[in-house]
Amino acid sequence: MGPERKSAVIEEKNRRLVAYHEGGHAIVALYTPGALPIHKATIMPRGSALGMVSMLSEKDELSWSRKQLMARLDVAMGGRVAEEIVFGHENVTSGAASDLENATRIARSMVTRFGMTDKVGPVAHGDKNEQVSPATQALIDEEIKRLLQESRERAVNMLKQYSVEHRRLAEALLKYETLSVDEIKVVVSGKPLDRKI
Amino acid sequence: MGPERKSAVIEEKNRRLVAYHEGGHAIVALYTPGALPIHKATIMPRGSALGMVSMLSEKDELSWSRKQLMARLDVAMGGRVAEEIVFGHENVTSGAASDLENATRIARSMVTRFGMTDKVGPVAHGDKNEQVSPATQALIDEEIKRLLQESRERAVNMLKQYSVEHRRLAEALLKYETLSVDEIKVVVSGKPLDRKI
Amino acid sequence: MGPERKSAVIEEKNRRLVAYHEGGHAIVALYTPGALPIHKATIMPRGSALGMVSMLSEKDELSWSRKQLMARLDVAMGGRVAEEIVFGHENVTSGAASDLENATRIARSMVTRFGMTDKVGPVAHGDKNEQVSPATQALIDEEIKRLLQESRERAVNMLKQYSVEHRRLAEALLKYETLSVDEIKVVVSGKPLDRKI
Amino acid sequence: MGPERKSAVIEEKNRRLVAYHEGGHAIVALYTPGALPIHKATIMPRGSALGMVSMLSEKDELSWSRKQLMARLDVAMGGRVAEEIVFGHENVTSGAASDLENATRIARSMVTRFGMTDKVGPVAHGDKNEQVSPATQALIDEEIKRLLQESRERAVNMLKQYSVEHRRLAEALLKYETLSVDEIKVVVSGKPLDRKI
Amino acid sequence: MGPERKSAVIEEKNRRLVAYHEGGHAIVALYTPGALPIHKATIMPRGSALGMVSMLSEKDELSWSRKQLMARLDVAMGGRVAEEIVFGHENVTSGAASDLENATRIARSMVTRFGMTDKVGPVAHGDKNEQVSPATQALIDEEIKRLLQESRERAVNMLKQYSVEHRRLAEALLKYETLSVDEIKVVVSGKPLDRKI
Amino acid sequence: MGPERKSAVIEEKNRRLVAYHEGGHAIVALYTPGALPIHKATIMPRGSALGMVSMLSEKDELSWSRKQLMARLDVAMGGRVAEEIVFGHENVTSGAASDLENATRIARSMVTRFGMTDKVGPVAHGDKNEQVSPATQALIDEEIKRLLQESRERAVNMLKQYSVEHRRLAEALLKYETLSVDEIKVVVSGKPLDRKI
Repeated sequence: MGPERKSAVIEEKNRRLVAYHEGGHAIVALYTPGALPIHKATIMPRGSALGMVSMLSEKDELSWSRKQLMARLDVAMGGRVAEEIVFGHENVTSGAASDLENATRIARSMVTRFGMTDKVGPVAHGDKNEQVSPATQALIDEEIKRLLQESRERAVNMLKQYSVEHRRLAEALLKYETLSVDEIKVVVSGKPLDRKI
Repeated sequence: MGPERKSAVIEEKNRRLVAYHEGGHAIVALYTPGALPIHKATIMPRGSALGMVSMLSEKDELSWSRKQLMARLDVAMGGRVAEEIVFGHENVTSGAASDLENATRIARSMVTRFGMTDKVGPVAHGDKNEQVSPATQALIDEEIKRLLQESRERAVNMLKQYSVEHRRLAEALLKYETLSVDEIKVVVSGKPLDRKI
Repeated sequence: MGPERKSAVIEEKNRRLVAYHEGGHAIVALYTPGALPIHKATIMPRGSALGMVSMLSEKDELSWSRKQLMARLDVAMGGRVAEEIVFGHENVTSGAASDLENATRIARSMVTRFGMTDKVGPVAHGDKNEQVSPATQALIDEEIKRLLQESRERAVNMLKQYSVEHRRLAEALLKYETLSVDEIKVVVSGKPLDRKI
Repeated sequence: MGPERKSAVIEEKNRRLVAYHEGGHAIVALYTPGALPIHKATIMPRGSALGMVSMLSEKDELSWSRKQLMARLDVAMGGRVAEEIVFGHENVTSGAASDLENATRIARSMVTRFGMTDKVGPVAHGDKNEQVSPATQALIDEEIKRLLQESRERAVNMLKQYSVEHRRLAEALLKYETLSVDEIKVVVSGKPLDRKI
Repeated sequence: MGPERKSAVIEEKNRRLVAYHEGGHAIVALYTPGALPIHKATIMPRGSALGMVSMLSEKDELSWSRKQLMARLDVAMGGRVAEEIVFGHENVTSGAASDLENATRIARSMVTRFGMTDKVGPVAHGDKNEQVSPATQALIDEEIKRLLQESRERAVNMLKQYSVEHRRLAEALLKYETLSVDEIKVVVSGKPLDRKI
Repeated sequence: MGPERKSAVIEEKNRRLVAYHEGGHAIVALYTPGALPIHKATIMPRGSALGMVSMLSEKDELSWSRKQLMARLDVAMGGRVAEEIVFGHENVTSGAASDLENATRIARSMVTRFGMTDKVGPVAHGDKNEQVSPATQALIDEEIKRLLQESRERAVNMLKQYSVEHRRLAEALLKYETLSVDEIKVVVSGKPLDRKI
């Protein structure tokens, strides 16, 4: 097998990985109460992003409920979790780095700015000029980790429950590259998509 | 249900949340000895604030008693606590972030500048150039957390005790958007408000 | 009771608090061996200070004995302790913040620069470029806290022992606003003060 | 033995060390699934490098799988491990410093940015402005060390298994100085290399 | 007793304190093997110093033995120890601050730069860019404290053993203000000093 | 004994100390496998150095083996160890400070950059922007200390074993001030040195 063929094989493997990764985000977003509505999903690379699921944010969204924040965590986890379930532990990629960064930032705010965990309590730790004891910092770290691990568990359950829909969506992304929210809904329901590619 | 209808529903849900949140601050302020007198309450958004309860500060207020400081904590907690009691754990929002920041700043001063807790004692830790051991910092963190948790408990009790008044005030805010202190007193007493909207 | 009447009541309450606070400093200064001699006491606000007891410092005072330093701690504690004894735990104010800051600075020097405690020993820790272990810092913190807590205890005992003199002085300050050291001595002895106000 | 002869002996000893070191990298790269394909190997010094194995990186490699990342660790470990196996504990050199630096950087990213270890979990710790507790930092350090120690073990096993091929490659590098990937494949298979030096 | 008389009394008390403090340094310097030779002693204030014992430093003194360094510690401790023995715990002053600073600097170098303690060992910790663990820092702190406490003990024993000589020297300093090394030797031997004041 | 005589005595004592110190470095360098070859030894002060043993470094020495690094540690330790063995614990000087600094720098690199200790493992900790947990830092500190303590032990054994040669070399340095490597070899063998001083 010559280098060109090989490169094409790798390219195809990567596209599949991206399709299932983005499909994972989209499926969690579709079925989690409180998640922002999906706008479209694509596996066309853009800048350093290998694909993207764009969501509609309500204008003037000045505050978020706990339910909405947890849904954002779950959607962020959906990409990595999809890689793991579909391709296995070994083939999980570094591509989830920015998802983890976003999710960690949200979880940190829940713990240190919004007072949303009992262990840390109704205390603001957002001011970086203020010192915090190692014990308090350890409590903060634990709560952030717990929120993210629990979110990951929910995403795993979600993608196992909707594995058929996930596969349908990922395969459609491989075929059509970009799908609108309405097309996504058709695709996951198992109906044929009436579209010229 | 079309997107416009939906957006309107969300908008209405948010207004209710803000009304009960601001109503929570106001009710705690009304019934807590040592709290500053209320001036007015509003659910008209302004800047990044979704609503506001404004209080009258005594001119030249150069010192605060422990009772006054604890009342300020309780009033700050009233907003978040109201969200939790009325809409439930899941629907608590990030909107209390600046309340928690203010309350934490006050509690920190009580512990580290005013020497108001026995465990930390009559010691000033306000100078950021001075190092403090992890053990001392842990004591400071614990006392700040304790002050805020106890304040939260008092706010919970207050809003449960005055739940009828709280509801009356929130519903009036939804109807009239802005209420003066005299109107607030009429409203919470259950009397009809004689006003053209 | 109209807002003006109310404001006047608060004003009067604050004056009493300041009179007893400054009276507390002065009484501890009068009866503690090693304290600097008082010059005058006043409850006339000046800048951010609500009142003041001024002391005479010996010229060219280049060194302080342990006894003098402990007396300075006790005099600093006298204001807050007076608030607590006379008006109760609840009504203690933030007005002692700068007293605590001064006292902490003195206690820190006793521990870290003058080698005046056995636990930390004859070691200078004043150089901020030098690191110090958490264990050593904890020892320093404990000794500073102990010095201040013991000083507070002495101030409590002093003001309980001289409660009559304290009351006489505070009431005279309310009446005359400013008293010289000679007038203070007359007042605390219970003799009438021969002065036009 | 004069200084010139001596210097030549040392020179020869160093060339052998470099040949086995670079040979170690190459052998691990050849036999580890997921490793980048080798381009060539050389023991010609260049800048501060004593030799080099260059690899082909796929263009636009925007994400790496866990398997690929672990292969990169193993290839980096191959140089030092080769020194140890062939020349003994005493003769291991400082020449592996940049290999260890690269491997540590990769392992750190796996732990703190790609969420690839269970103990640290799906949390991003890449933001250096965010504090982390000593306990969390200890967990991160342990996981980085574990990844590198396990990688080192795999490299040891690999080079023991392919010791014959390793020796063939190193001796060929001593003879020809630079080998292309095709020449490397011929050499390790034990076939004679048809080339003018 | 008028303010002038009083000030004179305080002045006299301070002179006595300084005379015994400087006398303490000088006596320890006279009788400790390895101490630098005294040049003169004075209780004439100069700058912020209340008195001074000047010593002769060997030219080009590029290295110090452990014995010499320990003698320097003991001489530094002699001033404070003299205050304590002669005037009592209560009357110890802040005047030893710069002595403690010097002694701490020497002890720190013995521990962290000269490798002179077994617990810290032959390790240089002088580079402030290098981190050190809390455990190592605690060991350093303990050794510095131990060196200084043991030095203090030696100074106490020395000044108790030579209390007669100490008193003779201090009283002569009160009388003559400044003494040369030869005059000091005459004075401590109990012989009369033949000098016009 | 006048000050001039005394100064001469001290001067002579210092020369002896330097001669044995530099002799210590040289003897360890002569008899330790892997040490760099000596070029010459001198007790002529230069800059802040009281003497010097210069070594020949191989050109383009880009990597060092563990054996060579340990030899460098031992040679650095040789000076201080010589002081201790010959003049006793009390008379050890601060003159070893730069030796300890160099040795610590080498040991630190062995532990944190070259991965040469099992406890820290094949991990690079050279990047000062990366945080390290107190536990990991403690491990690093322990390994650095252990390397240096073991090196010190080896130097002690070496100088006890070659005490005759050490004395011969030191006495020759006192007589001739500077010796070439060939002269050193003659001297330590006990043969007379045929040279005009």
